[in-house]
Amino acid sequence: MMDVAKRNNVKITGQGKTAIIFGHGFGCDQLVWNEVIDQFKIDYKVITFDYVGSGQSDKTAYSQERYSDLYGYKQDLLDVCDSLEDDSFIFVGHSVSSMIGMLASIERPELFSKLVMIGPSPHYLNEPGYQGGFDKSDIIELLDMMEVNYKEWAKYLAPVVMSNEDRPELAENFEQLLCSNDPKIARQFAEVTFTSDMRSELSKLTVPTLIMQTQFDAIAPLEVGQYVHDHIANSRLVIMKAMGHNPHISDAAETATVIKEYLAG
Amino acid sequence: MMDVAKRNNVKITGQGKTAIIFGHGFGCDQLVWNEVIDQFKIDYKVITFDYVGSGQSDKTAYSQERYSDLYGYKQDLLDVCDSLEDDSFIFVGHSVSSMIGMLASIERPELFSKLVMIGPSPHYLNEPGYQGGFDKSDIIELLDMMEVNYKEWAKYLAPVVMSNEDRPELAENFEQLLCSNDPKIARQFAEVTFTSDMRSELSKLTVPTLIMQTQFDAIAPLEVGQYVHDHIANSRLVIMKAMGHNPHISDAAETATVIKEYLAG
Repeated sequence: MMDVAKRNNVKITGQGKTAIIFGHGFGCDQLVWNEVIDQFKIDYKVITFDYVGSGQSDKTAYSQERYSDLYGYKQDLLDVCDSLEDDSFIFVGHSVSSMIGMLASIERPELFSKLVMIGPSPHYLNEPGYQGGFDKSDIIELLDMMEVNYKEWAKYLAPVVMSNEDRPELAENFEQLLCSNDPKIARQFAEVTFTSDMRSELSKLTVPTLIMQTQFDAIAPLEVGQYVHDHIANSRLVIMKAMGHNPHISDAAETATVIKEYLAG
Repeated sequence: MMDVAKRNNVKITGQGKTAIIFGHGFGCDQLVWNEVIDQFKIDYKVITFDYVGSGQSDKTAYSQERYSDLYGYKQDLLDVCDSLEDDSFIFVGHSVSSMIGMLASIERPELFSKLVMIGPSPHYLNEPGYQGGFDKSDIIELLDMMEVNYKEWAKYLAPVVMSNEDRPELAENFEQLLCSNDPKIARQFAEVTFTSDMRSELSKLTVPTLIMQTQFDAIAPLEVGQYVHDHIANSRLVIMKAMGHNPHISDAAETATVIKEYLAG
């Protein structure tokens, strides 16, 4: 039998009964949630994990085929849920994990009571009538850069993702986190993420969903958050005080508070 | 001694201890809160009132001088609070009442534990570097129209304010509400509202503040909500599913839920 706990480096903590599971974004691992989950340990059963290929997951379980689109990652999430005794989860996903959680919730709506999306984007490319924020040439350049000089790419991307120029340590730490990835796996995950188009899936989601956007997010701009909000039937959109694409890292307290408020509703 | 309860037609209901007070916007009265407050009666002491000149307030208490700016209305709110035995209030203000509540909270920060602003605007006019949504000529035209043909003005304004074209009864009812006002008082209140500039006050507010915006608000557009959010230190911005400037009327359930979530945080 597959040992999901080991494969996905599943960690369980907290004193509560309600299960809340946190999904990290591209280039990250479960440690990014450390400060946020501290705020949930008293009232929740807190589950974190690494997608296969990320963090301390079993990298031998990675296959280019399974993780050639977001459905492979969706299956990771469902596998983690099914490996636990709980029969209902709150899922908090950052960035591409928002879409992974959405796919899981569409397939198994009974498994998820609420969804929290932090900086979601269903499609990163600009299209006629849709502003995803990136031109195709931007994405190609980014993926090429990853291949040619992964470290240079990390150095370029980290401050763009983090914003908060007045706190340079945030970008430095994030650069290190990006550099801790296997470059080949990260390259494929980046391609899967940045070329995905989940726009037509949004309307299939029935689980109540909180969308969290920051004031300035270079990866998922406000218009994208509004698009997501418009297309999910049962959603709420909160604009945070935080800036940048990683509020769970840069502003963990506000991130936890906004999530808790929504869950209390 | 001044009988504030009578002057401002103060109504108290609910079974809870925590006092929550609702301030109506321009052209309205406390009845606009009816559906929303139903959701608060179990857990709160619910207070509604009419500003002098509106609803069933004592119109003989109206004076052009006292109500020549928002500070007169701010004093109404403080008078109502001081007439009650509670020493701390949550204040929920719609539209111009958001700014009235802000002024009261700046003067007496200890009196308010939390502030909720629904569709606030600190300044309705476009200025260099600020998009309030209206040109000066729009405002002059609106005020002239009120004077020349109040009913025609109400008929014009109601659908603009309410949006939700698919629910024409909303605009019809709001038109009737506007028509129930004393045209002279309403004309002065409109001028006070639409020519106010509270932008420099925002940063003086220290009370935690929830800002609620709808997806499409012709009176207070999203950019204005973001401006308010940017300039209040301790604020949260929620974008609702509702449309139009009066979500407490058109979408009372969502309005109540969003407020409750914030208060639970």
